[in-house]
Amino acid sequence: MIPTVEWLDEKNCMRMVDQTVLPAKLSYLEFSDFRDVANSIKVMNVRGAPAIGVTAAMGMACAAIEFSDGTKNFDDFWQNMEKAAEIMKGTRPTAVNLFWAVDRMIDKGKTLGNDPVTIKVGLIKEAKRMAVEDIEINKKIGKWGAELLEDGDTVLTHCNAGSFATVMYGTALAPIYWAVQEQGKKIQVIADETRPRLQGARITAFELQMDKIPVKIECDNAAGLMMRLGKIQKIIVGADRIVSDTVINKIGTYMVAICAKYHNIPMYVAAPRSTLSLAETEKDVIIEQRDGWHEVAEVMGRAKNNPIAPEGVECINYAFDFTPMELITGIITEDGIFNPDELLKKYLI
Amino acid sequence: MIPTVEWLDEKNCMRMVDQTVLPAKLSYLEFSDFRDVANSIKVMNVRGAPAIGVTAAMGMACAAIEFSDGTKNFDDFWQNMEKAAEIMKGTRPTAVNLFWAVDRMIDKGKTLGNDPVTIKVGLIKEAKRMAVEDIEINKKIGKWGAELLEDGDTVLTHCNAGSFATVMYGTALAPIYWAVQEQGKKIQVIADETRPRLQGARITAFELQMDKIPVKIECDNAAGLMMRLGKIQKIIVGADRIVSDTVINKIGTYMVAICAKYHNIPMYVAAPRSTLSLAETEKDVIIEQRDGWHEVAEVMGRAKNNPIAPEGVECINYAFDFTPMELITGIITEDGIFNPDELLKKYLI
Repeated sequence: MIPTVEWLDEKNCMRMVDQTVLPAKLSYLEFSDFRDVANSIKVMNVRGAPAIGVTAAMGMACAAIEFSDGTKNFDDFWQNMEKAAEIMKGTRPTAVNLFWAVDRMIDKGKTLGNDPVTIKVGLIKEAKRMAVEDIEINKKIGKWGAELLEDGDTVLTHCNAGSFATVMYGTALAPIYWAVQEQGKKIQVIADETRPRLQGARITAFELQMDKIPVKIECDNAAGLMMRLGKIQKIIVGADRIVSDTVINKIGTYMVAICAKYHNIPMYVAAPRSTLSLAETEKDVIIEQRDGWHEVAEVMGRAKNNPIAPEGVECINYAFDFTPMELITGIITEDGIFNPDELLKKYLI
Repeated sequence: MIPTVEWLDEKNCMRMVDQTVLPAKLSYLEFSDFRDVANSIKVMNVRGAPAIGVTAAMGMACAAIEFSDGTKNFDDFWQNMEKAAEIMKGTRPTAVNLFWAVDRMIDKGKTLGNDPVTIKVGLIKEAKRMAVEDIEINKKIGKWGAELLEDGDTVLTHCNAGSFATVMYGTALAPIYWAVQEQGKKIQVIADETRPRLQGARITAFELQMDKIPVKIECDNAAGLMMRLGKIQKIIVGADRIVSDTVINKIGTYMVAICAKYHNIPMYVAAPRSTLSLAETEKDVIIEQRDGWHEVAEVMGRAKNNPIAPEGVECINYAFDFTPMELITGIITEDGIFNPDELLKKYLI
């Protein structure tokens, strides 16, 4: 496993795996301008709710470096930082970790006194701390979730909520890593290809192959048959936001969950506390709609010269969907495994 | 609308739309050798259960031309015809119309006396009759099915069971054509792109656009959200084979049906009698598995230079799935609309 995002002290900048070019090559991007960091979230060089959160935090650290440079004016500094926060939060509307991370950086900064340079130093430290915490949280999710997996299980997952969706170790894949690497269980994974952006085929398959965990991919619409044929024992997915009545995750999660219920296959969601937004309900959430022609008809550019749809046809392209709590067996956080009622009791104070 | 397959008297050969290159271009293939016809079914220049049936019949007419040429030997002729029938039936294992059509040609031939040339003439006529009948049957399906559609409905369909899956007019799309063209209803269609071969995006969108019926495409995994958002009123799909307990259709139909049930959206299957094989059950049916690397990872060749999956990952690729009768609201044939119990009563004697 390799870190998806990291802070480079020697260069005072952040580095990330460029996930748009996976699986063809593993290459890195370095950014020191917070605007470039914001753009990398927007164009999805980095994706996955927890990874977006830490990236945004590092972006705020970049902003602190820029705005503390040559100024001692506390008000100017904060005015600029607030603007940077708005830009960072405007990159993607659904993953709640983004807002959580930016707010945490702002809140932290406000505890660090009046000197922009001191605040900058503290914010770099805070962003790095969030990266370390992310891995620790994911390992806890992995340890809890591994209890659910039996030797020989095949686990279906949708999209990528693996190491590349976090700083490292993943959320939905963490229980699999733990079960295989710490407990010696034999676990196989079926990864939905996850149209339109194909994170399952491109990224989940890539990282599991790298870690030598057996993985097959399937088209999203094959999950039902695989369940019917008895080839799937458990389902684990991640989440972009968990509100009081639904889980918001990559488009297609909902159909997997409905089919899981129909087949009585346990459906788990693995996500850190920072994904929870339990004061909200489904109605409060905007589902991002993305460029349908590029992502759907041109298959992310791969079919640019031979699109899969006739010219002029509109391509519906919602990035996420809603899975109501009644379809979810359990939610795995760093604190344990909770059914939906228990989750509300635990976290909705 | 244009005929998908037709017999050209002046050339004594068959002609078909090459569906592998849709939607980029509308081009035709002509075959006079039955082996080429068989191959066109195998490589899916032609697809869709009813279209495959008529194509196979025309292939048998080609065989009759070849084997009656210069021979008066009745036994030789039939021995060759039986071999041609085996080759034709071996092209694809799931669509039952293929077997039905080849058997009908053989049975018909056996009623036509002892002269191979006379038999040949009769078999060409029979294949052409089957093409005409196919269109008549589809229009009946359309007329029955249109009763189910209300002005303003949006209908979800999966794969292509339209004009291009038949000689003309389609099965699942026939009710839409009838409702729009004969009854003046406003109907919109959402077409699942239908991975891995993308018949929905490539073919359903193409033919509906050609006939000026409003159509949007979506990735297969978006159907659940669209149902949840109230954007789909009815679902109509075709079938490759209908046995006593399940409908066999393009992979993904099953998930659509499960989700339809969950949302209380009516789920209809439109298919001619020749698709019925009610003496069989799900257990009797072999689901074809196709080349996963080419179809899934290379997106039908479009991603040959930049596959969507890392090298060496196995791609699961079943072509069809099973939808149990409990998920089906009604089956539309040329004789009417039947719920699953009524269907068995009507056709299983």
